[in-house]
Amino acid sequence: MQKLIKDLIQKNNTKILFVVLDGLGGLPLKGKTELDVARKPHLDALTAMSACGLHIPVAMGITPGSGPGHLSLFGYDPIEWQIGRGVLEALGLGIELKKTDVAIRVNYATIQDGIIKDRRAGRIPTDKNKKLTGRLQEKIRMIDDAEVIFAPGMEHRFAVVLRFPEPLPQGSASIKDTDPQKEGKSPIPITPETPQAERVAKITEKLISQIAESIKNEPAANFVLLRGFSQVPDIPHFDEIYGLKSLCIATYPMYRGLASLIGMDSPAITGDLKEEIDFLKKNYNDYDFFFLHMKKIDSFGEDGNFAGKASKIEEFDSVLPEILSLNPDVLIITGDHSTPSVLKSHSWHPVPVLLKSPYVLGDTCKAFTEREFTKGEFGIFPTVNLMTLALANAGRLKKFGA
Amino acid sequence: MQKLIKDLIQKNNTKILFVVLDGLGGLPLKGKTELDVARKPHLDALTAMSACGLHIPVAMGITPGSGPGHLSLFGYDPIEWQIGRGVLEALGLGIELKKTDVAIRVNYATIQDGIIKDRRAGRIPTDKNKKLTGRLQEKIRMIDDAEVIFAPGMEHRFAVVLRFPEPLPQGSASIKDTDPQKEGKSPIPITPETPQAERVAKITEKLISQIAESIKNEPAANFVLLRGFSQVPDIPHFDEIYGLKSLCIATYPMYRGLASLIGMDSPAITGDLKEEIDFLKKNYNDYDFFFLHMKKIDSFGEDGNFAGKASKIEEFDSVLPEILSLNPDVLIITGDHSTPSVLKSHSWHPVPVLLKSPYVLGDTCKAFTEREFTKGEFGIFPTVNLMTLALANAGRLKKFGA
Repeated sequence: MQKLIKDLIQKNNTKILFVVLDGLGGLPLKGKTELDVARKPHLDALTAMSACGLHIPVAMGITPGSGPGHLSLFGYDPIEWQIGRGVLEALGLGIELKKTDVAIRVNYATIQDGIIKDRRAGRIPTDKNKKLTGRLQEKIRMIDDAEVIFAPGMEHRFAVVLRFPEPLPQGSASIKDTDPQKEGKSPIPITPETPQAERVAKITEKLISQIAESIKNEPAANFVLLRGFSQVPDIPHFDEIYGLKSLCIATYPMYRGLASLIGMDSPAITGDLKEEIDFLKKNYNDYDFFFLHMKKIDSFGEDGNFAGKASKIEEFDSVLPEILSLNPDVLIITGDHSTPSVLKSHSWHPVPVLLKSPYVLGDTCKAFTEREFTKGEFGIFPTVNLMTLALANAGRLKKFGA
Repeated sequence: MQKLIKDLIQKNNTKILFVVLDGLGGLPLKGKTELDVARKPHLDALTAMSACGLHIPVAMGITPGSGPGHLSLFGYDPIEWQIGRGVLEALGLGIELKKTDVAIRVNYATIQDGIIKDRRAGRIPTDKNKKLTGRLQEKIRMIDDAEVIFAPGMEHRFAVVLRFPEPLPQGSASIKDTDPQKEGKSPIPITPETPQAERVAKITEKLISQIAESIKNEPAANFVLLRGFSQVPDIPHFDEIYGLKSLCIATYPMYRGLASLIGMDSPAITGDLKEEIDFLKKNYNDYDFFFLHMKKIDSFGEDGNFAGKASKIEEFDSVLPEILSLNPDVLIITGDHSTPSVLKSHSWHPVPVLLKSPYVLGDTCKAFTEREFTKGEFGIFPTVNLMTLALANAGRLKKFGA
């Protein structure tokens, strides 16, 4: 499909603003969803003049992680393009990955006489982790031809990236987790699962022994367990497929990381929604496409905080006029997946989506809610088609066939 | 897709109850469908608190047989997994098929000087068929290394199963029908269409001549015509893909046979809906998944009996409270295809479906009817996705990607 779209692309001066309210969709508590109870006059008014519907990120019944959720929004088939755990962890810790990288999630662990006593090294404090990981970075910079990059995370978690001089062949990160998932066992030795993985395996063995040598006298964090070996996918870039110069505006590193994987400019910014919108305004003239990510709705959903999630929807509603004042040619407001407070997690439910442009029917839905959006002119459709709708409404797609 | 689902399965103690009202969907007679006119207070009340929609068994406009209709409900792509005519006939006659079997539909016919006089042997009485076929079974038990199993059907029809010591390679049943479809012609000789089919062809030639020898002095049924040669598909089992211990509750052999093909326990039961529900209750603690099949709605549809079909819907409604009292974690009520009385046959129309679980929006449809269900939160979707929704609502699927 992306191949077809690429062939139909025509450039113009339109601007597409793609607002992702993370975890937007919800489920009813006493009959009403978070969107039902939130006071959101601006969103509801916009609904009446927009095309609306619900989209399914991966497939009916499948709950997407953030990776598949976002790739799908940007038109990448999330089953074809699977982002490894190590890569997502590294992105989340703020490492800017390159296509030559292999990324690994690592736990500090406690080992005694070759047996794992604690897979999480007693959940050492994050400060201690920072100190230890900083020390490792000082000592270990290259192994064979691979640059080694460390990034500390929370408690016992960190990430390691092996940066090679050139992209590695497919299958190069097919290495078994060394974490046996149980205490009282030995770590699993490095086991390449394909011949292509032997180069990374050899380096990883050296990495483990160098780390172990360096931390062997620590009281708790005296060993490491490696999981989620993964290569950065050789995924086509956004500008290459769509001809869009694109900017990611997100405060969480993982979303910026995902965006940078597909070639969006993804500068680090801090603050909350207000700062994000200021940043959008400042850069509005310099890009064709803007991915504006708001995290907090999802966070409250994950916490099971129904009222909190609703209040964050209201917060977005209050800044919506500022966004509208930019008058983008195409404005999309949606989520990457649903996060119903009653489930305290991502879910499989379709995600509400609104698209404003001069070229929609409109007038099918009365309010920005899940139930109303079942009546929308988009129906219920695969998320991966949304980018095509954005491009079409921006006049950026030629006719297919004569 | 089933591969993806298999990777995401997590087990728990939930129960999924899947009620299939065969031939459920209908069409209007004087403006109202069978579901519109049926008094069904329990179904309508359940609708309000459930997720609803319509599903398409094979593809828009395609009328499914019972095989594709049910496979699709259970998450098997009905185009990928085609069940041969011989296999369906044998299942319908109550033969428990194994993966080593080749099944064939057979007609008794009348032949004279090598020319077919009557392709149906004057539609001999079913009793006569039973006697003849019983005699054949006594005489013919093995041909080469294949066990031969006969099962009489109605009038001139019966089935033969060749049971081999091991599963045969794909293509082993690619043999032309011997029925020329016209009187006044000779039977078509056994013709293998692939090299793999030669083993079965050789045995089938012997089978025909042994049968002919045995019945040559019959006045009408003095020969046989063979059709629908088919292998039992090597289809993955339900427990293997979904991790569900599953029970089929159906009074008609063909549905039990289909269920047993995908590894459901499918004990023979007799009686009607009441007996089925008693059986469900008795076995409720021992399974994760229940396929409860009600045949009668379809039968009245096939007869063109509009009022009769509506009354059978009412009959189901009257026992629904008993089903609800079991309080399954996920309850699905749907059909395998539509059978509008006005068409007197299966049809291509989407099939109403209701799913009750704690994790639905609900409140989108006012009554259990085809028209109301176009407003449902599921929209109109491929039947093959329904199993994924069942698993998701039962909490039996992990998140896809991080």
